[in-house]
Amino acid sequence: MRKKEISPVELATACLDRIEALNEKTNAFITITRELALEQAARAEQEILKGEYKGPLHGMPYAAKDLFETKGVRTTCGSTILYENFPQKDAAVVEKLARAGAVLVGKTNMHEFAFGLTNHNTHYGHAKNPWDTERVTGGSSGGSGAAVASGCVPMALGTDTGGSIRIPSSLCGLTGLKPTYGRVSKYGVYPLSWTLDHVGPLTRTAADAAATLNVLAGYDERDPGSADHSVADYVKALETDLQGMVIGWVDSLFFEMMDPEVKALVEAAKERFQELGAKVVPVSVPDLDKAAQATLLILSSEAASALSGHHRNHPDKLGADVKSRLDAGAMHLATHYVDAMRWRRKTQEGFARAFTEVDLLLTPGSSITAPLIKDAAVNLEGVDVPVGVALTRCTRIFNLMGLPSLVLPCGFDQKGLPAALQLTGRPFDEAGVLAAGHAYQKSCFKMENWPEP
Amino acid sequence: MRKKEISPVELATACLDRIEALNEKTNAFITITRELALEQAARAEQEILKGEYKGPLHGMPYAAKDLFETKGVRTTCGSTILYENFPQKDAAVVEKLARAGAVLVGKTNMHEFAFGLTNHNTHYGHAKNPWDTERVTGGSSGGSGAAVASGCVPMALGTDTGGSIRIPSSLCGLTGLKPTYGRVSKYGVYPLSWTLDHVGPLTRTAADAAATLNVLAGYDERDPGSADHSVADYVKALETDLQGMVIGWVDSLFFEMMDPEVKALVEAAKERFQELGAKVVPVSVPDLDKAAQATLLILSSEAASALSGHHRNHPDKLGADVKSRLDAGAMHLATHYVDAMRWRRKTQEGFARAFTEVDLLLTPGSSITAPLIKDAAVNLEGVDVPVGVALTRCTRIFNLMGLPSLVLPCGFDQKGLPAALQLTGRPFDEAGVLAAGHAYQKSCFKMENWPEP
Repeated sequence: MRKKEISPVELATACLDRIEALNEKTNAFITITRELALEQAARAEQEILKGEYKGPLHGMPYAAKDLFETKGVRTTCGSTILYENFPQKDAAVVEKLARAGAVLVGKTNMHEFAFGLTNHNTHYGHAKNPWDTERVTGGSSGGSGAAVASGCVPMALGTDTGGSIRIPSSLCGLTGLKPTYGRVSKYGVYPLSWTLDHVGPLTRTAADAAATLNVLAGYDERDPGSADHSVADYVKALETDLQGMVIGWVDSLFFEMMDPEVKALVEAAKERFQELGAKVVPVSVPDLDKAAQATLLILSSEAASALSGHHRNHPDKLGADVKSRLDAGAMHLATHYVDAMRWRRKTQEGFARAFTEVDLLLTPGSSITAPLIKDAAVNLEGVDVPVGVALTRCTRIFNLMGLPSLVLPCGFDQKGLPAALQLTGRPFDEAGVLAAGHAYQKSCFKMENWPEP
Repeated sequence: MRKKEISPVELATACLDRIEALNEKTNAFITITRELALEQAARAEQEILKGEYKGPLHGMPYAAKDLFETKGVRTTCGSTILYENFPQKDAAVVEKLARAGAVLVGKTNMHEFAFGLTNHNTHYGHAKNPWDTERVTGGSSGGSGAAVASGCVPMALGTDTGGSIRIPSSLCGLTGLKPTYGRVSKYGVYPLSWTLDHVGPLTRTAADAAATLNVLAGYDERDPGSADHSVADYVKALETDLQGMVIGWVDSLFFEMMDPEVKALVEAAKERFQELGAKVVPVSVPDLDKAAQATLLILSSEAASALSGHHRNHPDKLGADVKSRLDAGAMHLATHYVDAMRWRRKTQEGFARAFTEVDLLLTPGSSITAPLIKDAAVNLEGVDVPVGVALTRCTRIFNLMGLPSLVLPCGFDQKGLPAALQLTGRPFDEAGVLAAGHAYQKSCFKMENWPEP
């Protein structure tokens, strides 16, 4: 784009055409913003021609999960209650991407209010996995996962409250970044859980995630959860060497009730990191099971607070899955929430101690590869485990901790479905997790044979 | 002491004798630690004689509210459940004071678990106000207030969850500091409310508070709420000039339902600050009433969590006031707690905006002077207001906000009871509030005619 070899208008048109051709199959988009996209692309083209190149996202098409406010563009949150919701402003990150010259091509499908269950139908139909359209993309940013994996956009915005960026990235063979809590502004993003919600990108590579984070990161006084903490140049940091880096391998929780094929692939990745010069050591964090349970209680309590208006005024318009989760959340006692928050703090100390011994943690991104849409449970170690439990086991703890986590593909199971690993760093060390992810990806894939469905 | 004009042993003995002579009248102490005190004083004396003077607290007697753990010294929390509780360690601040050479002469009376109501009897009897022993000291650090006001010790430690340092300071004519949340370690302090509890000193002057804070302040990894934030030299900072300082006058909440005599005294203090070179300007913070209500919900929910064991196992041993507050706290819903926490955050933003216009806030320390022990309510503006409501109106909002607040005497009502003002600063600006308090006190009182009961 910078070299004027590709025209932003041609690229946007190609993306829009591809979206329109594939959307019946993947159901990735709720709204396609052709008119807005072509307008933004034309502006980008003019700017670049005038020599006002703004950086790697200039003229780049992207999609946003349908809970990011977009001025004048319908924003449903995957709910029929908001069927006619046309926001009057852009979310902070949509604004930032516009300023960087990016081109919004559409709003992606999602679980209702980011709270619906993966195997329940959504009001806008299931997003389908481009690797096998009988299978789920994982949620709640499932449309964003399908949009990037099907080659419709190089980047899509997601939100992650218990894994909602990382799960679709894992199941769709993508790179998904949940930055540190407070790193990226949530201004103009429909809230689900004010202490667990995170905003981040789904991309094909860690390098693309770094270029996106360079635009998204930074303090925003309009978001009460925003952190006034220095920002790195994440693209520059990609070239950090892994020599001497210490990676921790946490056995408990993450490797329980796991698909053996995925486990073998993550173990192979561990050896790859050792070949790249990192030292992999076992590290332990106490009481992870209890903390993982605390996440569910905090999430459902906060969701019942954030969505109390819809829950009270339109219970009939909510999906059965969302309504029953809100019913449960509305019954929790404050003392239990307080207890859970105290566990949260205790577990944060456990991770802080682990990070005095290691620089990064290596865990699976998901216990399983993409399950079939029709399956409510998967059989793991002889036990039928609900899909939602299997999918969030490895991710939700890092929402509770607020730590930066990156998932990326680490191979394929025998069905040809992508498996994923997860790298987690110290608070605000997005640079570290992205650099490690980038080194791993460079060692595994060349761009021309990047995994594609 | 430094000049060897006063002997630490003689001073400790004089304090202990005075405590024993007055304790029947004031009921300030639950436990007098004569043996330990004389041992610590003898050690201090030896050190000073050897030329190892450690600073202004070396050889200085002090008392600690009976919820600071003291190794081998009974620590009751004002409860009969802990009648035989002899901790195995010292609280972090007790340890720090020992290292600074201070001498612990006793453990002070308090409301049960710092949660009892002012007009209810405590298990160890009412602490009585040295200005009029028919009147309350205010709680929950009431024994600490009585101990300092009666001249038994120059400093006593308190805790402050809704005003428990500042209320007894106000009613007893003392200077009381609630530092910023996280400024002083709570390790080894019995918790009441993990997001509202603060540790600080009750002293006669802001200068004494500064010397004490120099010892108490600092990060402690053993306290999950501790803040890793730089510490100032608070004594050095006392000499800051008020010239050009902007002080905000918040009309709403603080001046509602107020004793007109106290109001007049606080207004006179405002003029004094103007004479000292400060500019006093009106400033507004929205929805303070709602935030003040949120404090009560958060406090009772967190107390019901912190004290759940005693509440479950020994309901019969709890005072009726504490039991009924815990019964209420145990029934709050998580969604209401979450809503209250979101209001808290919103109000913190309101104060942050106010602090872009002003350096300090000037409010009353208490709406009233000390009420009679027998009174459950006080008549304000024609309405019977429960004593607990009138006493915490001006203080509890700053627990919710976590801001540093200092109360100090600003004159006497016609009954001869002390009234108090309150100075509140930006997060971690204890230096600013102490300097302003010091300048005010220097302009009002000479040490030789410092207000004494």
